[in-house]
Amino acid sequence: MSEETIRLRIDLAYDGTDFAGWARQPDQLTVQGALEKSLAVLAGSADAVLTVGAGRTDAGVHARAQVAHVDFPASAWQQLSSTAVEKLNALTPSSVTINDVSAATSGFDARFSAKWRRYRYYICDDEATLDPLVRSWVLAWPKRLDVAKMHETAQLIIGERDMAVFCKKRPESSTVRDLRHAAVSRTLVEGLVVAEFVAQSFCHSMVRSMVGALLAVGDGRQDSEWLRQLLSEKERSSAVQVAPAHGLVLEEVGY
Amino acid sequence: MSEETIRLRIDLAYDGTDFAGWARQPDQLTVQGALEKSLAVLAGSADAVLTVGAGRTDAGVHARAQVAHVDFPASAWQQLSSTAVEKLNALTPSSVTINDVSAATSGFDARFSAKWRRYRYYICDDEATLDPLVRSWVLAWPKRLDVAKMHETAQLIIGERDMAVFCKKRPESSTVRDLRHAAVSRTLVEGLVVAEFVAQSFCHSMVRSMVGALLAVGDGRQDSEWLRQLLSEKERSSAVQVAPAHGLVLEEVGY
Repeated sequence: MSEETIRLRIDLAYDGTDFAGWARQPDQLTVQGALEKSLAVLAGSADAVLTVGAGRTDAGVHARAQVAHVDFPASAWQQLSSTAVEKLNALTPSSVTINDVSAATSGFDARFSAKWRRYRYYICDDEATLDPLVRSWVLAWPKRLDVAKMHETAQLIIGERDMAVFCKKRPESSTVRDLRHAAVSRTLVEGLVVAEFVAQSFCHSMVRSMVGALLAVGDGRQDSEWLRQLLSEKERSSAVQVAPAHGLVLEEVGY
Repeated sequence: MSEETIRLRIDLAYDGTDFAGWARQPDQLTVQGALEKSLAVLAGSADAVLTVGAGRTDAGVHARAQVAHVDFPASAWQQLSSTAVEKLNALTPSSVTINDVSAATSGFDARFSAKWRRYRYYICDDEATLDPLVRSWVLAWPKRLDVAKMHETAQLIIGERDMAVFCKKRPESSTVRDLRHAAVSRTLVEGLVVAEFVAQSFCHSMVRSMVGALLAVGDGRQDSEWLRQLLSEKERSSAVQVAPAHGLVLEEVGY
């Protein structure tokens, strides 16, 4: 007999260092897997509890604001709603923070209702100033970066276009994406270089590939014209290096 | 035959998580031990290269601005001075950043020339908002804290007094210390509680004990009067809990 369920929205953050990414995988520690295991304990259910996330972050990528939904046993939810956040935080690994759990609005789908995702990539281009306490989410880059040039170049990517050159091709799926916002700036106090991107969705490895291309421009190996020509390519190019995962953070999902 | 040496000042930062503290110890990974090992490689010397640090941080305590000095072979220094920072950063573990290496001014002693040390202790008193990317240096506290009351109470400790109640007694050493500054505040953006202390020097475990006492006041278990009475005790009290090491950061040493 199937039980009545209620759709819950879960807001969470994680340090991706020790996870094989967001998406559940057999025999691997993933964020989704850890979350679902904790939800099953909370539901007091022997059945698997399945979630859907807004962003499929890769192994090593972090999130300060991931969103997921789950169809949860309604009776169990009624009993624990006010303590769900506290209980889930006690059940999940310390690398995961559950920020909020709430009854979702009608028709809410963490993945398909999302209007946009905002990612940031963090870089320190002066190794002698790298704060060792942030090194798990900041890429150390051995050459100084021309931030103004990176920002200017990033503007070329904005718009709806085939992002094939930045995307790991997946069968049957389009690589056309609409990049709404791209900005590269330096933080005032720490002097970190931050590259920020907003799109309705990104294809696989797209943000890290854009960052890899912008790093080549920023440290003088390439120029804006090189990137402009790349944009017309119809498949991934070995000229674009994918920046390491650990500098990337999913910062916000808009609904 | 002993070689001519030059005294160098080394500014460094570290994530103390995986270290058994600053001070060298046989068969333990310590920051000073790792630094000295790297300096010996740099000096091309089979002899031990000994350093003196400004603050003997405990196991798990971090530093954003530790200072050390070393008497280094003058000829080796002449050859590498401009590349010393880069080379030391390549030799030390990734949890250590060498910020600067320079010829010290005459008479400089990292420990005895220091006029003051500034420490900060970081606390998140709302587990549901803890950024997992900072959890290695922020203490998660299960109850909300009254920051104004903690700040007011911290002012009682300021001044030159016997800090015995906060200090792990060391034979032959005084527990009189002059606490010049104590402040507890909440950061605007992240909402973290930060307790800051400045003194010429601190005795062993003093900052973590002051924080432990202020936490008891902040979460309502104790009041200011309790702390005022503690201050007259002549030895450590089991009433004062020593706060965990990982929230503590040596932020600055003044000369």
